[in-house]
Amino acid sequence: MQPQPDLGHPADLYPTRVDAARVIPRREAVVWGSSSNGPLTNDELAHYDRTGYLQIPELVTADEVEAMRAELHRLSCDPKVLADERTIAEGGRAPTDSGEITVRSIFQIHESNDLFAAIAHDSRVVERARQVLGSDVYIHQSRVNFKPGFKGKDFFWHSDFETWHAEDGMPLPRAVSISISLTDNHTFNGPLMIMPGSHREFVSCVGATPVNHHRESLVMQGVGTPAPETLRTFADRYGIAVLTGASGGATMFDSNCMHASNGNVTPFSRSNLFLVFNSMENVCGEPFAAPARRPEHLATRNPHPVIPRPSEEQTR
Amino acid sequence: MQPQPDLGHPADLYPTRVDAARVIPRREAVVWGSSSNGPLTNDELAHYDRTGYLQIPELVTADEVEAMRAELHRLSCDPKVLADERTIAEGGRAPTDSGEITVRSIFQIHESNDLFAAIAHDSRVVERARQVLGSDVYIHQSRVNFKPGFKGKDFFWHSDFETWHAEDGMPLPRAVSISISLTDNHTFNGPLMIMPGSHREFVSCVGATPVNHHRESLVMQGVGTPAPETLRTFADRYGIAVLTGASGGATMFDSNCMHASNGNVTPFSRSNLFLVFNSMENVCGEPFAAPARRPEHLATRNPHPVIPRPSEEQTR
Repeated sequence: MQPQPDLGHPADLYPTRVDAARVIPRREAVVWGSSSNGPLTNDELAHYDRTGYLQIPELVTADEVEAMRAELHRLSCDPKVLADERTIAEGGRAPTDSGEITVRSIFQIHESNDLFAAIAHDSRVVERARQVLGSDVYIHQSRVNFKPGFKGKDFFWHSDFETWHAEDGMPLPRAVSISISLTDNHTFNGPLMIMPGSHREFVSCVGATPVNHHRESLVMQGVGTPAPETLRTFADRYGIAVLTGASGGATMFDSNCMHASNGNVTPFSRSNLFLVFNSMENVCGEPFAAPARRPEHLATRNPHPVIPRPSEEQTR
Repeated sequence: MQPQPDLGHPADLYPTRVDAARVIPRREAVVWGSSSNGPLTNDELAHYDRTGYLQIPELVTADEVEAMRAELHRLSCDPKVLADERTIAEGGRAPTDSGEITVRSIFQIHESNDLFAAIAHDSRVVERARQVLGSDVYIHQSRVNFKPGFKGKDFFWHSDFETWHAEDGMPLPRAVSISISLTDNHTFNGPLMIMPGSHREFVSCVGATPVNHHRESLVMQGVGTPAPETLRTFADRYGIAVLTGASGGATMFDSNCMHASNGNVTPFSRSNLFLVFNSMENVCGEPFAAPARRPEHLATRNPHPVIPRPSEEQTR
């Protein structure tokens, strides 16, 4: 019998979770808009196009950072938040004896919290996403991340698009992540590392996706990580950029950037608000390489365009 | 009954492994010599005095680095070396299936290996140690360290002198470590971090030293690490210096520097030759806070002055 073509599913241009890894050149554009479509200049767009990322110092004000930090602190002590399935905590969801914050991430924060929703819809953020993607955009995923001092864990090299393609059915790498720093990023407290230019190559990963892989993968990585020899080649070819910067700044990066972060033994914790904007012309279908969809709070199936709202703080 | 004074033991100026931690100002000098005693300039000595460390670019040549790296690779594949109690390996001493290097450290390398012995006695190294300590010096401890790429482990904050005082009976912080880099140190591959100026304060640590603590402490740290609140205070007071630099360079640092290193998920491994010179006027006695002496390869009980030998490579 001939295998039936799956007429309801687009062709898989980026096969992954396969038997043998390979590197596939990216076909699609990285920047879809131009300087006439939004606040980013030609130079900024060219930097993003070339490296796959762009740092925006002082995207939000110090007062806004303080408000978000206070809110994050409040949320991480709230038993309701700790019990929510959208909250990922270190070693379970119970507070520790010492009262220490154990929350690692809170997903779908742009829907559950007014303050973070406001920032997610703020024109300073959304207009830049629309500009890079050259279309209406929606929020594929949002979360706040908290990486504690002294024992912050590392995150191994990966492309977000590899996961979103395999497990969420995102057809193409036409998505941008905007990470707004709520703490200073030093070289020494586990900042984001990106291999500049790596967004031009898709690295397929070896191994089938287990059922309910997301329950493990948010805590421990396995499937969906590139082979060491590929990473060696990439590191030699592209080098490693260490993205430092003061709180209130943001990093925009392409969904297919190879990125990672080291652990953190310093006393300086790190936290950020992480927003993933996907193009309305690139909405997710069935997973390309996973037995089932991930839950809504990890990858929405209910895309609606984000309308930029004017900033309350009109400082820039 | 009155407790008997221990007439054979000097007064303990730096009590540690106690019930309640405290911070004790250092009484002794940091630099005991002057620019007329050796190759270090007044500016270099002043930097070392103030910060507790000094970086020396290109202390050894590229050829010497290559020779040491080749030797380290040879040693890490040698079953005799792997079986030696002076070798510390990741997860035991057997080679892994993949043939990967699992050696983390080889101690007392200056006695077991001619090449490393030559560097340990080289005038470029020894004259600087003699100059800082203002006396004849001996090698308290030596080792080569190997921190692999992808999975290099972190090392938590500590003062070496705290351990050498507690477990080896080193009376005063009159010792200098010289770490010669055999690989490039980037901000992103787990380089040495020092809190500059922290060498002026001794942080006593809580908890008694268990029997044979060294068998655990070389693999996992527990006793002998400062309290988080002290580290927070120190980090705010002193900041954190990240010691990057090319292979062949060296870092000299005071035995009482508060230092640490993060893990390393990048493909770039790190290795160094680590030599601890102690003043002949500061030889070790009985441990100040441990039930028994550590083995000879961790802390020699057989001090003899190191006579500087002229370099074979007279490039500097």
